[in-house]
Amino acid sequence: MLSPIFLLTDFGDRDAYVGVMKAVCLRIEAKLQVIDLCHGIEPQNVVSAGYVLLTAIPYLPYGSVVACVIDPGVGTERRIIACELEHCTILAPDNGLCTMVLERYPCTRVTELEWERFAPDVPSTTFHGRDIFAPAAALIASKQRSIESLGTRVPLKSVFCLSLYPHQRSDSSLEATVLHCDHFGNLVTNVEAFRWNITSDLLRWCCRVEDVTVPLVRTYADVQPGEVLCYLGSSGFLELAVRNGSARHRFGASPTIIFFPRHSAL
Amino acid sequence: MLSPIFLLTDFGDRDAYVGVMKAVCLRIEAKLQVIDLCHGIEPQNVVSAGYVLLTAIPYLPYGSVVACVIDPGVGTERRIIACELEHCTILAPDNGLCTMVLERYPCTRVTELEWERFAPDVPSTTFHGRDIFAPAAALIASKQRSIESLGTRVPLKSVFCLSLYPHQRSDSSLEATVLHCDHFGNLVTNVEAFRWNITSDLLRWCCRVEDVTVPLVRTYADVQPGEVLCYLGSSGFLELAVRNGSARHRFGASPTIIFFPRHSAL
Amino acid sequence: MLSPIFLLTDFGDRDAYVGVMKAVCLRIEAKLQVIDLCHGIEPQNVVSAGYVLLTAIPYLPYGSVVACVIDPGVGTERRIIACELEHCTILAPDNGLCTMVLERYPCTRVTELEWERFAPDVPSTTFHGRDIFAPAAALIASKQRSIESLGTRVPLKSVFCLSLYPHQRSDSSLEATVLHCDHFGNLVTNVEAFRWNITSDLLRWCCRVEDVTVPLVRTYADVQPGEVLCYLGSSGFLELAVRNGSARHRFGASPTIIFFPRHSAL
Repeated sequence: MLSPIFLLTDFGDRDAYVGVMKAVCLRIEAKLQVIDLCHGIEPQNVVSAGYVLLTAIPYLPYGSVVACVIDPGVGTERRIIACELEHCTILAPDNGLCTMVLERYPCTRVTELEWERFAPDVPSTTFHGRDIFAPAAALIASKQRSIESLGTRVPLKSVFCLSLYPHQRSDSSLEATVLHCDHFGNLVTNVEAFRWNITSDLLRWCCRVEDVTVPLVRTYADVQPGEVLCYLGSSGFLELAVRNGSARHRFGASPTIIFFPRHSAL
Repeated sequence: MLSPIFLLTDFGDRDAYVGVMKAVCLRIEAKLQVIDLCHGIEPQNVVSAGYVLLTAIPYLPYGSVVACVIDPGVGTERRIIACELEHCTILAPDNGLCTMVLERYPCTRVTELEWERFAPDVPSTTFHGRDIFAPAAALIASKQRSIESLGTRVPLKSVFCLSLYPHQRSDSSLEATVLHCDHFGNLVTNVEAFRWNITSDLLRWCCRVEDVTVPLVRTYADVQPGEVLCYLGSSGFLELAVRNGSARHRFGASPTIIFFPRHSAL
Repeated sequence: MLSPIFLLTDFGDRDAYVGVMKAVCLRIEAKLQVIDLCHGIEPQNVVSAGYVLLTAIPYLPYGSVVACVIDPGVGTERRIIACELEHCTILAPDNGLCTMVLERYPCTRVTELEWERFAPDVPSTTFHGRDIFAPAAALIASKQRSIESLGTRVPLKSVFCLSLYPHQRSDSSLEATVLHCDHFGNLVTNVEAFRWNITSDLLRWCCRVEDVTVPLVRTYADVQPGEVLCYLGSSGFLELAVRNGSARHRFGASPTIIFFPRHSAL
């Protein structure tokens, strides 16, 4: 039984980079399904890629292999790792991309990939997606090779992680940052509602973006067109949006955002 | 026998929205083919989406399921409907997206989808593509569920439709609007040549855009580079273009367009 | 055994053009794999398309059919040709797109496609991707038709080719041009390192772009962020880049580029 492969890159759409990765996979096994998760990650934005990956994890079919190639360090000594979760395996550069996933999902094993063990040729210095990630993903997804045969096990705690939680201040407000700006100009903050006990009590919280006070509401239709809103996004994080507009245009990509309970004085 | 699923959205390419919809489908049936029809619809542009859908309908394989998620009303009480045509089924919000298709193709049944009958979880308020459209499409395309088991039949005439025909004036000229602006900057008007008896007699018509008189010709090469032309587009509508250029740059996205027979005085 | 089909177009992402091509293919054979090679080629840029095609050729699975629709001459008398290489077949307008591939790979046969022999309908004047390329590709990839049955054999030397090599000057320097600008703003020059004996001796060469002297290095990390570099790209051509930046922003899309051996006086 073949597993599906999902591709997550910052390769955009002007080149055959993604198509070539698929070609490499199909050469190894013609019946593989290779599916685009996203290729429009802002170039080299590892945080945004990590968030986009996180949004997909709960929906991946059992056995999926995700090849993540947002890789500013390509050609340097940075490691490429395979992180095995319960229902899927993530291949990524060891550059912090997996931070959010590893904080939320148990990881049963981390393997440092060694291309000498499986790559058909000496890799280029600039396109490891084609030369290392694609063959590794295809060999795993087609069950031709075990993951452990592609490299060496390394400790989970050796994986490079970023600090991505909001800053909790003494007045119990949260200083948030933007993880990701989506296609509609919505700004996804790093405040996961569940983690901060906001989910069940959304309306007891307020949000302040630059000098604007923004209501926490259930959905777009709860405010007038053109108004700013904050709502629980479909992946569990609080998001800023402008109804029928763009929060990114309004506030830029990295505004100062403060969440605080209504009873507190900011 | 599995049917193919086609996805039409305004989700763009910066997020995993589309990839997650595919993942949800593949979880329901690993062998489904899920194909991108288009994800670059201008955000919330229901008319453009309806036109793009129309261009694809005649070419879809028998049994295809098209999931259309251009959905400004997500999270409100708007209905999600399944429209069964003779050779395919369209899932869409009941927001006018299906207007042009329903005017041109017989629809054998309309079903209002009820997520309680099939969705694995309570849907989010903002991402029904993932939570309702994808599971419905996959259950139908994999034949695991009949369409009627996913909701309640509603009358065809209850479907919300837009008014999209050109305005016919007393001097027999047609006042046209733009349905869609394509990747090349071509402006697709709402004048379907066949319907207005223009097809067989293209050269007897004239077109006026803003203050410019535009010839109706057979193809790009019939005018000089840089010149404006009007021709019968590949889906049967009259289109404005600039050879080796962009009609959108020249005229904007919604110019005033008048078609009139040559013998008439405008 | 079905072969995969790869699609290379300048159709972008705003329309169903690509999705419709896939639908046409799947109508002919439901189990075909139709894979996006690239759809973001700059409109009508045949040179860039030819380069992107070239980068993919060595990685295509045996038997692949590539349908290339960058076709400024659509609707004119330009030919559509099928070029059979040893491991794949390329369908393209006879407009120079295949130049670089045919210079580097043996071509066993060229066939001029004649739509009367296989197209289901009289083709439109503007969308041969749907009306000619897709059915031809699907019939070949599904083995329903032989290539020779779709048209007439023509001489290889009748194929229209462009002049794309760098100009070698009397002082043994090379005057290069840009073949392609990738998603990251890297400028791919027409200097194939192998052909000019630069591969093994990269550091003995210099590059001059406008007034800037650019070092030839192994990878991005060999220069500081913001600095210009020239390196051997993953497809064997020398490329200009700015580390963590864009060479296209720095130099535009078609700067003057000179390569010369270090010992020479420019």
